[in-house]
Amino acid sequence: MSVSPPRRRRQKQGEIFMSEITNRFCDSTGYAELSLKQYGRFTGDADETLLPFLTENTIVVYVTGEGGSVKLGASVHTIEPGMVVVLFPGQCVNCSALAGGKSGGMWMELSGDAVPAVLQRAGLTPQKPTLMPTVPAEQSEAAALFASLTDPAQEYGPLCATGKAMQILDCLLRETPRPVQPKVANLQRYYVDKSIRFIETKYPQDISVEDVAEYCGLNRSYLGKLFRDATGMTTQEYLIRHRMKIACSYLERAAAPIAAIARSVGYPNQLHFSRAFHKVFGIPPREWQKRNRKV
Amino acid sequence: MSVSPPRRRRQKQGEIFMSEITNRFCDSTGYAELSLKQYGRFTGDADETLLPFLTENTIVVYVTGEGGSVKLGASVHTIEPGMVVVLFPGQCVNCSALAGGKSGGMWMELSGDAVPAVLQRAGLTPQKPTLMPTVPAEQSEAAALFASLTDPAQEYGPLCATGKAMQILDCLLRETPRPVQPKVANLQRYYVDKSIRFIETKYPQDISVEDVAEYCGLNRSYLGKLFRDATGMTTQEYLIRHRMKIACSYLERAAAPIAAIARSVGYPNQLHFSRAFHKVFGIPPREWQKRNRKV
Repeated sequence: MSVSPPRRRRQKQGEIFMSEITNRFCDSTGYAELSLKQYGRFTGDADETLLPFLTENTIVVYVTGEGGSVKLGASVHTIEPGMVVVLFPGQCVNCSALAGGKSGGMWMELSGDAVPAVLQRAGLTPQKPTLMPTVPAEQSEAAALFASLTDPAQEYGPLCATGKAMQILDCLLRETPRPVQPKVANLQRYYVDKSIRFIETKYPQDISVEDVAEYCGLNRSYLGKLFRDATGMTTQEYLIRHRMKIACSYLERAAAPIAAIARSVGYPNQLHFSRAFHKVFGIPPREWQKRNRKV
Repeated sequence: MSVSPPRRRRQKQGEIFMSEITNRFCDSTGYAELSLKQYGRFTGDADETLLPFLTENTIVVYVTGEGGSVKLGASVHTIEPGMVVVLFPGQCVNCSALAGGKSGGMWMELSGDAVPAVLQRAGLTPQKPTLMPTVPAEQSEAAALFASLTDPAQEYGPLCATGKAMQILDCLLRETPRPVQPKVANLQRYYVDKSIRFIETKYPQDISVEDVAEYCGLNRSYLGKLFRDATGMTTQEYLIRHRMKIACSYLERAAAPIAAIARSVGYPNQLHFSRAFHKVFGIPPREWQKRNRKV
């Protein structure tokens, strides 16, 4: 699910990028389904008991006060400083500070389909809505980022605030006592989707079927079988088809030389590109362009 | 488009939160339509000329080398250290280092509908794809974040990497010489959407029509007219309708006390809630619950 190892290498002759390049692939996490609604801090007086309430969205709380207890639905949980507590949607929440204690926390309200999945990976579910991170508060990156996000002296735009919220969740995943592997309902679909995302991002570079298999952490022939069963074509065919699709979109719009288009879809050699193009479409690229040019 | 001023105040009796709270509203930026694909660094040798290429997505480059020139489509741009250069999709790109200079940069590849809109706000368009930030490289937050994102010694998960990319864009907006106001095709729709997002996030709190108007920076009666023309109801009616919609979703699922539900949709006083509920649905909340309960 994470980033591919950085590549630092001398590019081969004819490749489109500079002589020395590091390059990291960013896989999808469904972050598009994650949205920050509100955030802030709170403190509560000693012995204060809050009236019960419900929340429509998910609220992630980092406890900074002296602690207390919280009743979420039917279960009571003891709250300690440094703990992470999640209020899940539709649960009735009852909070009270411990006798003599002062409660407090930093919170963010999140919505979106990705939220339960991300929290579940950190081990946080409606059945287990609290956790004590393995990293103490003063060394915790999550706590530092939360403090920065909720700093009343700071003013953040939505892009920045949402970016910080994503980083807080990422830190929580790393500072969690028992990181939970993502549950994959359909392992075949998971690897095929992962391969497709890789191919559809890396096609401009000189990638091979081995690179796709290596990225997925699978044997080449095993991935090949999974891929063929799911899509009806080989990984290599999918890669070529995607390269030709993008080449067509460039041919339709751009006045660029064929050599530049070839290079931009992973063919340093224009002749190899034209041959592959002809094999797929039955005509040379320039001929295809004449018939399909949009501008 | 940005965050509302923080509220730090003593909560009123009966409100659901703690005695002291800071609370920031995070408006939508269409960030859901923004996705980080790849990122990294590059260096080029002196006098090296790159072969032309095209890119499918948008590539944002922060120039760290000694500069050079880039031809984007038909226009040639001089590149200097500290500059931001954007390669827009489908444009033919020709780069060359200046004689004797060493080129280099940090880059990220972005896709999604929000990307052109965000870049346009920083003044970056296909017609004007370069800018020199007002903040020098050594003081630039964008540069520091870019260096952190593309640090080859670091390994980031997709949530963290995407979060950093959003923060880089946010910094660019602030470090840009001529911040461009977002172009709003339909100003009425813009304010109505802004009001709705505010109401649909803040309804659990004791907000009034004045708060909505203040958040939008408009006169109350002017916003009222815009809102009524667009939705056929007053801002107040919309707020009540939204509160009742959420109350119903709680009544359907939860075994929570009516007082807790009332409080969670912005009615500290249960009686006021029941009266408003009856006015909308013609029956009391408990009666509605009996007929519609799902669990």
